Amino acid sequence: MKRTSRDIRTANRYEVLRQIIAESPTSRQELAAATGLSLATVATLVGELLDLRMITEVGFEDSAGGRPRGLVAVNASGGALIGVDIAETYVHVELFDLALNVLARADEDMRPGESLPEQVVSHVAAAVGSVVAQAGIEGARVLGVGVSVPGQVNRDTGISEYAPNWDWHDVPLLDLLSEVIAYPLYLDNPLRAGAVAEMWFGAARGRGDAVVVNLGTGVGAGLALGGGLYRGVSNSAGEWGHTTLVLDGRLCRCGNHGCVEAYVGAPGIMLNLRELSPQSPLLHPEDQTATIDALARGVSAGDPVAVKVVRETARYVGAGIANLVNVLNPEIVVLSSWVARSLGEPLLHEVREAVGRHALPRPMAATRIVLSPIPTDPACLGAATFALEGALQSVGQRKAPSAKRAAPARAGRTAPPS
Amino acid sequence: MKRTSRDIRTANRYEVLRQIIAESPTSRQELAAATGLSLATVATLVGELLDLRMITEVGFEDSAGGRPRGLVAVNASGGALIGVDIAETYVHVELFDLALNVLARADEDMRPGESLPEQVVSHVAAAVGSVVAQAGIEGARVLGVGVSVPGQVNRDTGISEYAPNWDWHDVPLLDLLSEVIAYPLYLDNPLRAGAVAEMWFGAARGRGDAVVVNLGTGVGAGLALGGGLYRGVSNSAGEWGHTTLVLDGRLCRCGNHGCVEAYVGAPGIMLNLRELSPQSPLLHPEDQTATIDALARGVSAGDPVAVKVVRETARYVGAGIANLVNVLNPEIVVLSSWVARSLGEPLLHEVREAVGRHALPRPMAATRIVLSPIPTDPACLGAATFALEGALQSVGQRKAPSAKRAAPARAGRTAPPS
Repeated sequence: MKRTSRDIRTANRYEVLRQIIAESPTSRQELAAATGLSLATVATLVGELLDLRMITEVGFEDSAGGRPRGLVAVNASGGALIGVDIAETYVHVELFDLALNVLARADEDMRPGESLPEQVVSHVAAAVGSVVAQAGIEGARVLGVGVSVPGQVNRDTGISEYAPNWDWHDVPLLDLLSEVIAYPLYLDNPLRAGAVAEMWFGAARGRGDAVVVNLGTGVGAGLALGGGLYRGVSNSAGEWGHTTLVLDGRLCRCGNHGCVEAYVGAPGIMLNLRELSPQSPLLHPEDQTATIDALARGVSAGDPVAVKVVRETARYVGAGIANLVNVLNPEIVVLSSWVARSLGEPLLHEVREAVGRHALPRPMAATRIVLSPIPTDPACLGAATFALEGALQSVGQRKAPSAKRAAPARAGRTAPPS
Repeated sequence: MKRTSRDIRTANRYEVLRQIIAESPTSRQELAAATGLSLATVATLVGELLDLRMITEVGFEDSAGGRPRGLVAVNASGGALIGVDIAETYVHVELFDLALNVLARADEDMRPGESLPEQVVSHVAAAVGSVVAQAGIEGARVLGVGVSVPGQVNRDTGISEYAPNWDWHDVPLLDLLSEVIAYPLYLDNPLRAGAVAEMWFGAARGRGDAVVVNLGTGVGAGLALGGGLYRGVSNSAGEWGHTTLVLDGRLCRCGNHGCVEAYVGAPGIMLNLRELSPQSPLLHPEDQTATIDALARGVSAGDPVAVKVVRETARYVGAGIANLVNVLNPEIVVLSSWVARSLGEPLLHEVREAVGRHALPRPMAATRIVLSPIPTDPACLGAATFALEGALQSVGQRKAPSAKRAAPARAGRTAPPS
């Protein structure tokens, strides 16, 4: 549990870079004020980031009579980061500069039933190869690839320990990916990627305690508590989707009964629709995306079945979020991922009403519920920040970002290290 | 959200004192290692605590060839702290020395229906007067009184905002108490008091993420996350008792349906018993304590009704704890408060089984579920530590603990500041 001084130094370096990315240009004095670190510490860390070419000096600002202050900014072209969002229905890959601007994007659809690790890996490899080619950058400039995969992951071993929607158990995903991708790889799950994206760039920025609720095929809650990502003791916190909301209720893919996910994951929403109107034309039995999109269009058009299904779904989402509000007393709850994006404001409206009916007045009064304001894929963005964090952690092992990679090159990879 | 350097200094002083209380005698070097603070900072804080007479020099230890190291220990007789645990069925008050040893104790029973603020305040005043008299100490040596009261409290204003089991709304409890108690008063609730007690002296000591589940008339979960007490954005985190476990289920006192508390609070357990066996001699309709004690004796004696009621109750407790395990991935879950103490090992055994059926394998494998090992009342102990924290916070306003109190003396109090 105790952190070494090296851990603390890495965390501080990351915190300073994160602040520079959020507020470029900025001065060492502003960084010290924003991070709570001493000016001397900030100056040392800024020096290291300058040496790594991750940031650059960009001029001076007056300081009310004192010496002019040197300004630094992120060196956007100092390297590239790749974020991979693996979901049950798609693979999204985005390539970012160091200011976390999207330079290129590739999407791959996954057909229903396409869930073998080898199939997933080949989609990821194709999309990673595509974004590097599109961006036209040298492979050597890619500092790392962050990979978000649903379910419970061991980020140290790179193993996907359990992905209920694919029935994956102990899949050595990072090993499989490293056979076809030559960049340093960092594995985590969409709950944590989504939470970090909101903390850095989204609705949780500057908030003390935030809950980022992912609504997709699977559902869960990324937790940003006390200004930092909360992982739990074995990096599996946030499994809100598998909390019991209806004791002895509907069977969930995890084997339990009455889980939140069984009612509000995309397959659960399809079941809500089927129970209400078995022959509904909104239902595309084998296609989650088409069904959710049809529901969204139906709500816009005032289709009573669509309105009722979204209201019923929101009742479960709202009762489940009220549980999080009562336990965690967050400042903000963010609805994210593709189902939330597709159902949008009508879902948000119903969810707010439902949370209000279930949460206690005091925590309810302290919280806001919003849709994710991140225009691109938050899980890609968050995964890319894990790669950035990883790149900073490996400073010391290698002198500059263009030096030898963490993973040795192998034949047959889509993106050799130049 | 940003802490001032004064906040940080107070927090560090508290952390050092906490470590000295936990490990007396100890050296400045050991304190630096345990707290992660620099030796210079520790030396300054130790100096301040010596000046305040909260700790004393107690000799030297050899340091393997180096200079002998000075040892400090808590100055147990340097002051007294009072912890008050107000529950629906009792008021417990304990007086502690600075090493947090219990010097005196007074209990008051609350009759069913005895729930007016004035009635509660008069029980507290009587018990506080009793422990000071028993301990035979000067009032001036009492550094403060921590008060734990059920429900949602605003610790800054001292208002009990909502106590569902008494139907209290916005009761100015600290003002009422300060009319009859002359010591500085600090208000919080049993969830946080219980969590701090376990962190300092109990099963959560040295654990990164811990959940302390209070099972009493009301139920809730104190959260000790990342080594510190987690309060949420408006100090109302931990309201696990009012999370929905059975959507549209049993009516709860909070007005919602299907809350955990409706099934596992003492009145909920009585209802479990009544539903199973309406005429059971175990049931004392107006007496929670007698009914829970009868159930405990019944389980020991192998009474099938008692065994079944405890098993059924444990099913709800276990499903509810599994929700906390899945969301928070804690290292330890501690069962505390009077119902857990009374039902003891048989309840623990059934709860472990039930959590195992509901929690996901990965977080389940990382957690232990135990009964509170604290032999006295954890809520009194935790409340006393809030008083200690408050006393350290007011350092700077007053030079030494025997100086002028935070609350001015008034006539008619049970314990004038001598």
